[in-house]
Amino acid sequence: MYDYKIINAYVVTMNADFSVIEHGCVCVQGDSIAQVCCMSESYELEAQTEIDAQGSLLLPGFINAHTHAGMSFLKGYADDVPLKTWLFEHIFQVEKQFLNPDNVKTGAALAMLEMIASGTTCFVDMYYFVEETAQLCEHIGMRAFLSQAIADFAVADAASPDIAFAHLEKLMREYEQHDLVRIIPGPHSIYTCSAEYFKTARALANRYNLPLNTHLSETAEEYQNCMEAHGKTPVEYLADLGIFEGKTIAAHCVYVSETDTEMLAEKQVAVVNNAQSNLKLVCGIAPVPAMLEKGAKVCFGTDSAVSNNSLDMYAEMKTAALVHKFNSGNARAVNARQAVFMATRGAAQSLGIEHLCGSIEPGKKADLQMVNINQIHAVPLYNVYSHIVYALSGGDVDTVFVNGRCVYLHKQFQTIDEFDVMLQAQELANKIAVEREK
Amino acid sequence: MYDYKIINAYVVTMNADFSVIEHGCVCVQGDSIAQVCCMSESYELEAQTEIDAQGSLLLPGFINAHTHAGMSFLKGYADDVPLKTWLFEHIFQVEKQFLNPDNVKTGAALAMLEMIASGTTCFVDMYYFVEETAQLCEHIGMRAFLSQAIADFAVADAASPDIAFAHLEKLMREYEQHDLVRIIPGPHSIYTCSAEYFKTARALANRYNLPLNTHLSETAEEYQNCMEAHGKTPVEYLADLGIFEGKTIAAHCVYVSETDTEMLAEKQVAVVNNAQSNLKLVCGIAPVPAMLEKGAKVCFGTDSAVSNNSLDMYAEMKTAALVHKFNSGNARAVNARQAVFMATRGAAQSLGIEHLCGSIEPGKKADLQMVNINQIHAVPLYNVYSHIVYALSGGDVDTVFVNGRCVYLHKQFQTIDEFDVMLQAQELANKIAVEREK
Repeated sequence: MYDYKIINAYVVTMNADFSVIEHGCVCVQGDSIAQVCCMSESYELEAQTEIDAQGSLLLPGFINAHTHAGMSFLKGYADDVPLKTWLFEHIFQVEKQFLNPDNVKTGAALAMLEMIASGTTCFVDMYYFVEETAQLCEHIGMRAFLSQAIADFAVADAASPDIAFAHLEKLMREYEQHDLVRIIPGPHSIYTCSAEYFKTARALANRYNLPLNTHLSETAEEYQNCMEAHGKTPVEYLADLGIFEGKTIAAHCVYVSETDTEMLAEKQVAVVNNAQSNLKLVCGIAPVPAMLEKGAKVCFGTDSAVSNNSLDMYAEMKTAALVHKFNSGNARAVNARQAVFMATRGAAQSLGIEHLCGSIEPGKKADLQMVNINQIHAVPLYNVYSHIVYALSGGDVDTVFVNGRCVYLHKQFQTIDEFDVMLQAQELANKIAVEREK
Repeated sequence: MYDYKIINAYVVTMNADFSVIEHGCVCVQGDSIAQVCCMSESYELEAQTEIDAQGSLLLPGFINAHTHAGMSFLKGYADDVPLKTWLFEHIFQVEKQFLNPDNVKTGAALAMLEMIASGTTCFVDMYYFVEETAQLCEHIGMRAFLSQAIADFAVADAASPDIAFAHLEKLMREYEQHDLVRIIPGPHSIYTCSAEYFKTARALANRYNLPLNTHLSETAEEYQNCMEAHGKTPVEYLADLGIFEGKTIAAHCVYVSETDTEMLAEKQVAVVNNAQSNLKLVCGIAPVPAMLEKGAKVCFGTDSAVSNNSLDMYAEMKTAALVHKFNSGNARAVNARQAVFMATRGAAQSLGIEHLCGSIEPGKKADLQMVNINQIHAVPLYNVYSHIVYALSGGDVDTVFVNGRCVYLHKQFQTIDEFDVMLQAQELANKIAVEREK
């Protein structure tokens, strides 16, 4: 007797053969996928709960490999301004006053619910008060790598880098065996974090065999400043510090030389492309097709809801697929199937969790999304990958499982009252708006 | 006694002052908007039907200024290939076999329902068997400029250009006084339609004081070929032929010189930017911020569901706003409010129908969309325009009015059974797929 039996699904497994089962059944037992078969082979399988997926795709949950969940309480706070103005005149100012555990909790809850409702089951985060987000991952039900931001200066949750590291290690230990969450070091960037702290972060990550998460070569200015200060590109600079000697997640990588690309590929760095954020903040377009060609492991992230302002991975995939075609002059670049791969199994590979998730296969954790294609904008169906990337959107997601737990069923959140979260978030925004008027 | 009273709406009027009524009421009488006021002024207003818009925005319906509705039966048929391969090896081949009135009707119905469900109330179309689409506009309820495609060669609905023109004029006359539809000439492009036929189309359009609709300077190849053949840019070529001496809708305009831009502005050509299609088919990025600066009237189109593959104007606005920031190196370019303007009143201005639609004002036709923002991804709310462009999507649309008629109410189509349309479209797609396998 299984826990769940999902029947009549169009199963897009994203396994090594990219198998698709047009009339399929998937059973969930405990936290894992127990059966993946055709409907014709499914009739004797029994489960406590049966979910009819007629007219729906069943896909692996998406992995959003770069975001700042806690910032969602600032969604739409400052738009249409360049990155530096945005960061220094708006975001840092409002954070100074409003960054605290309660507000991070509100933001992270908003972000997680938005991600779940648009088919994301796992995310890589960087922000402050990481324990708040970690507790929510457990409560709401999401898989995550949560990186505590490390900088040279005092930040919201640590008066000094030493305090930050001590707190970080305590949390890393605490979550070492957790079902869903890993806490990891997040040296913020080469322009906010010294070589010394980068090295400390690397050593700490390696001690727990976990990735380190950083922003890398996001803007032309960062690239030029690094060249001037060190005579090296940002990628070379970190490589020479030994930062890539261990699992690394590097968000952005917009400005990378050919040698940089080879280095990122050789070191199997998880490169996270944030196409929408990079366009919105006028950072540029990362050379993703060239990176993929060199064997770099590129996946997608939405960045925060303040620089996007959506955490919908469907929209992110589409925009990424489109801009990379344009930018490489090749309409075949980042094709639909590849884009879906990069948001699922490819991302799981990059992050070193392919044994856990990224595809629908017996034995993997049940991180699943059921997506309604019995809708006018998804008809007719010629090619399922094309629909996923170019025609569907996050709002088409109907049901989501994380680690075997049904967290979203027929568009209803199962683990938290979303209206409480929305009310808190709007009350906080009202306070912030009043302060801004002053 | 009004027909409809929409209460508790967050009304984004898009009028000349960009007035927003946070707690507003809009009444509809016949085909028109009769009242726009605050809730506090609304209590004595009575209507046959009251719609509670609590938690929703009320916006003018979007104007999708360039699409090919009838092509929607080919949605997802050919992706990830360059424009020429796409057009000559895939689209033209399948059209040769399957382009007929029935299939155009199926495609157009799909497209219209998709547009309505994502907040679009008016569209500019170019395709064949225009009368099928026109009848559907009346039946389903959409405002449209439908252009019959004109080319030098025999096309699906006309054995020769002469036959095409005769048929076109007959339809133009027939729909001259129609509530919703105008039929207009659609000389396809400078590379498929001779100077002579362009001039005939211009004269015909002017005889009825209607716009002419064409594709213009979509690819670098078109630009270069025109320079080689005529020593002129495509814009100069049409200008010298006198084609801009009358209302003109020009889709794409990706390759335009500074002089071209000045010409487009001077002649008040309705320039239609199709950002997503232009990226997907690797055509390029139109210099929209520069065109706007010169006073050109730029609006948005999704292009067809075969080159996008979605008709969602929310996604189109967002991608356009983002790529134009990137391409102009200016994060302030195509800001959120401007993007909404370009999809509503700005588009109505461009098309010469500002007296009818594009804003929520008493006396205008009731072309309205109600959009649910009581959703996790739309909370909190700091700036309504930012949310519309960067955070919402077509799936958030709840209710749509066209010309005073409620065509979509709480996510239910009111004028047609969408499942019939979906079934027809999928059956047709199955036939096409079988043929392709041969």
